[in-house]
Amino acid sequence: MFKKILIANRGEIAMRVIRTCKEMGIKTVAVYSTADADSLHVRFADEAVCIGPAPSTESYLKMSNIIAAAEITNADAIHPGYGFLSENAKFSKICEEHDIKFIGASAEMIEKMGDKATAKSTMIEAGVPCVPGSEGVIPDFDTCLKVAKETGYPVMLKASAGGGGKGMRAVWKEEDLLPAWESARQESKAAFGNDDMYMEKLIEEPRHIEIQVVGDSNGRACHLSERDCSVQRRHQKLTEETPSPFMTDELRDEMGLAAIKAAEYIKYEGAGTVEFLVDKHRNFYFMEMNTRIQVEHPITEQVVDYDLIREQILVAAGVPISGKNYYPQLHSIECRINAEDPYKDFRPSPGKITNLHLPGGHGVRIDTHVYSGYIIPPNYDSMIAKLITTAQTREEAINKMKRALDEFVVEGIKTTVPFHRQLMDHPDYVAGNYTTKFMEDFEMKEPTDN
Amino acid sequence: MFKKILIANRGEIAMRVIRTCKEMGIKTVAVYSTADADSLHVRFADEAVCIGPAPSTESYLKMSNIIAAAEITNADAIHPGYGFLSENAKFSKICEEHDIKFIGASAEMIEKMGDKATAKSTMIEAGVPCVPGSEGVIPDFDTCLKVAKETGYPVMLKASAGGGGKGMRAVWKEEDLLPAWESARQESKAAFGNDDMYMEKLIEEPRHIEIQVVGDSNGRACHLSERDCSVQRRHQKLTEETPSPFMTDELRDEMGLAAIKAAEYIKYEGAGTVEFLVDKHRNFYFMEMNTRIQVEHPITEQVVDYDLIREQILVAAGVPISGKNYYPQLHSIECRINAEDPYKDFRPSPGKITNLHLPGGHGVRIDTHVYSGYIIPPNYDSMIAKLITTAQTREEAINKMKRALDEFVVEGIKTTVPFHRQLMDHPDYVAGNYTTKFMEDFEMKEPTDN
Repeated sequence: MFKKILIANRGEIAMRVIRTCKEMGIKTVAVYSTADADSLHVRFADEAVCIGPAPSTESYLKMSNIIAAAEITNADAIHPGYGFLSENAKFSKICEEHDIKFIGASAEMIEKMGDKATAKSTMIEAGVPCVPGSEGVIPDFDTCLKVAKETGYPVMLKASAGGGGKGMRAVWKEEDLLPAWESARQESKAAFGNDDMYMEKLIEEPRHIEIQVVGDSNGRACHLSERDCSVQRRHQKLTEETPSPFMTDELRDEMGLAAIKAAEYIKYEGAGTVEFLVDKHRNFYFMEMNTRIQVEHPITEQVVDYDLIREQILVAAGVPISGKNYYPQLHSIECRINAEDPYKDFRPSPGKITNLHLPGGHGVRIDTHVYSGYIIPPNYDSMIAKLITTAQTREEAINKMKRALDEFVVEGIKTTVPFHRQLMDHPDYVAGNYTTKFMEDFEMKEPTDN
Repeated sequence: MFKKILIANRGEIAMRVIRTCKEMGIKTVAVYSTADADSLHVRFADEAVCIGPAPSTESYLKMSNIIAAAEITNADAIHPGYGFLSENAKFSKICEEHDIKFIGASAEMIEKMGDKATAKSTMIEAGVPCVPGSEGVIPDFDTCLKVAKETGYPVMLKASAGGGGKGMRAVWKEEDLLPAWESARQESKAAFGNDDMYMEKLIEEPRHIEIQVVGDSNGRACHLSERDCSVQRRHQKLTEETPSPFMTDELRDEMGLAAIKAAEYIKYEGAGTVEFLVDKHRNFYFMEMNTRIQVEHPITEQVVDYDLIREQILVAAGVPISGKNYYPQLHSIECRINAEDPYKDFRPSPGKITNLHLPGGHGVRIDTHVYSGYIIPPNYDSMIAKLITTAQTREEAINKMKRALDEFVVEGIKTTVPFHRQLMDHPDYVAGNYTTKFMEDFEMKEPTDN
């Protein structure tokens, strides 16, 4: 087992990794930028090394400084957290070259999964369902007709040079294909000077549902069921839950199997997430694979009684997985509490936390790196805490989240607590009836005194 | 279901009950003494009524004030928490007379279980094993010999007028009985002017293991397995865990059955705890039954995914229990964090908490009513927080407790955090090898800078 792990990250995920290391009896090294000198991860690690000034390129992304910190402190492994260098093939390779175990994917796996086109063709080889459509540009309408038939209606015609919805047409039946083809090409020609078109299956009422997997060095993988991350604003996840209210036992087995297939095909080692789009008919399509721990991993931990960071470390040390899959025994929801003003278009709100009181009690978990008096630096992402509630049913988990949000006191800055509080009362959210489009129509109600 | 519940308590248990009420959509009324005006339970309840000055007899024990508060606020039920009026038969009856549901035992049950002698004879009728021995005073040595044989060696001879160990003799075999009988009587005569003796089975290496039960209005009860509360100092529990490291599946079934027998015999309604002494041979003997929620209830909740306060409320509202028993799926430990100085014989340390930072993350639960800036009044018990860790194994739960204790920052007052930290490293505790005598030999090591 590793003796000392350097955590090449900051914020709550640095705290998260330090905690598990302590519980496993592994020494920890924090690295920090000058802007993060007062951060909790610096305080709770056994050692801490300053790796440069605030811009991440000068510190958390500066590979040479991080490798030097690991060498100075004799760390035998590096945990990259999420973001920063966690999916950087070069960094994974450099660690390997310095004989420091990178607790994450190998350079080869990261490269395979990092590029969307490569990932998609790899997954097609592996037999994992991907969004069907044309292979590149459609040369003529006869081909278009044929591809549409093969893909199955509804389909989406898209301009190769497209953007901002220009040159895009949703087509629901064959008789509408020709007029759509012609008008889309004309529009594309006019907008981009190019009328190359390609086609994809139209995903109706898409949901973002991902499957957590863990693979070991024997090439074996297991799945830990799904997380529903459809509540997104501009592709940023805001809240996640497991099980997905849209899930069925059958679909879970199918998606779980596909995710295992994906992981085993590339001999994936470590914790990873296979993200799918699921349409209203419960067809699912591979989107991408994240070769790292994810922000929303705690909800999985809560419902399967599993420590995913521990598992990452064990697998990195060569311990084989049991091979069994894990199914949700409870319901868990995570709200990302960001230092943003939900009443002002989620504008960042850095500054000093003058007073902090966190909720607690039955079924409440908080992962955070902030404290009363902490000054949130403006340099990093705005998440200040993850609030996770867990209960026997979805309804109870929502009710628990409401009361926990009501207990959450942060003074000095604005946070997304009021957004989550309103979300938990939204009829469509309560009904579990939401897709990735949900936030497009969401509007904050004015605050009340209550 | 109840519309509004008044919580006739303070501190963390008031918060605990308020939280579950909120989650169930039930309005809450806090009551508070003038000393508790700044307490969190006052802030988080929907309404709050001051019921008098600090001495509990003038507020939290003052039945007329509490009933008046319930009537003014239209509360249809009262949750008494633990301590104060929770096992007061008169209060239970008064609530009933005022048509306010007392969320606890009926006056009759409290009376049956509140008096030790009555409780013991009731349990003997119910067929629950009690500590065997003489019925009252032993008239002569022949009877003594006979009773000892029936009880089974080892036995304990005790002076009826005894105290402080005077006139007590442990007897391990028959040939030692006569000299013990004579010397104990002489000692008792000299000390108390009375040589009446009685006899009890000597409980070797006693462990305090209790069984959580829930009974419903149909007279049916289930058990939720055990809690080991053997780590006690002057009969005050310091830390508890479930499962007990001393437990076997067979013993759990036997004790669970006995606890259900006890509850069903008296048609017990609500959450209750049947406390047993268990000797080194795994014989178990009824000690007492607590007809209320207990301080250490969260560890049971953690390992069986159950909200005991919710169940109390449901059962009080007439909802029948499912009837199945619950078995620990995980391991959970609770440390009671008291405002006491463990380096100075656990002397109380009230005062202002100038800085508070609570641990968090995976497997950590905190139940508390304090916050940064809170002034601990000197009038009440010294518990300021319950720290509960839960993991797949006992070893992991201990390691999690250690790291959580290391994160626990309380400034301005002394707390028992250092005691628990040392306890978690104590070889006998780590081995699960402790009895109710454990604390007699425990000595705090000097603090280190580490």
